Amino acid sequence: METFKSQTTPIVYKLDRIGGPERGFISLVNDYDIGFPIRRVYWIYDNPKGLVRGHHAHRTLQQVLVAFSGSVKITTENTSGDKEKFILSNPSMVLFIPPLHWRWIDFSPNASLLCLASDEYNESDYIRDYTKFKSLSNEV
Amino acid sequence: METFKSQTTPIVYKLDRIGGPERGFISLVNDYDIGFPIRRVYWIYDNPKGLVRGHHAHRTLQQVLVAFSGSVKITTENTSGDKEKFILSNPSMVLFIPPLHWRWIDFSPNASLLCLASDEYNESDYIRDYTKFKSLSNEV
Repeated sequence: METFKSQTTPIVYKLDRIGGPERGFISLVNDYDIGFPIRRVYWIYDNPKGLVRGHHAHRTLQQVLVAFSGSVKITTENTSGDKEKFILSNPSMVLFIPPLHWRWIDFSPNASLLCLASDEYNESDYIRDYTKFKSLSNEV
Repeated sequence: METFKSQTTPIVYKLDRIGGPERGFISLVNDYDIGFPIRRVYWIYDNPKGLVRGHHAHRTLQQVLVAFSGSVKITTENTSGDKEKFILSNPSMVLFIPPLHWRWIDFSPNASLLCLASDEYNESDYIRDYTKFKSLSNEV
């Protein structure tokens, strides 16, 4: 697969589905594929109907998202106000989100989401104030 | 959580479930938690009923497994013939499998499995001949 190393906008990538109906399917990523070290992995599950998460951006964190079940609609916005919408509806689809993108994540009923992150949790890397986020357009 | 760094036998560990019924749950691992770099991540999904995978051991690879949906029964055997059975039935349970453990993996209908692996794919790290695997007990 292509690496996301120099990617500065969100991008959906379709992974191979290795296998078949009689033995199931595997999809995979290597750290060298995605272009960042996988320092932290988390997964969001047992979600209530109508859940929307996100509402933040990261200063430096890079992430790759996979919808394991159900579908997940992700809206991103950069500091210039450019919005994009993505729908992850299959475990072979991954979404790369670079730093400095606000995100809204809508879960379908019973959707679960896997996230591969380039760094450990660090509250100071979060931007949780939307107005402050938008004001960064003057800095970058 | 405890690290699996010096762990030489398979072990199930229960992660925190961060969240609640009104906003869903998150579970997570950091590379420093599990004690090995997460070089490769793969997931097994859209499995047929009655699927059994595995039937191999690894010379050096370390793995952490998570059942994302359904339940997954894993039987391991070391080179001395010691067998253990584990059932992953919740996304907050992880199973660490150290090197030199044969494994059989039984999937419930609609079960899916996440695997965090300490290295990239390397066919020479696989031991696929059970008789050869058992003969390693004389070497280690």
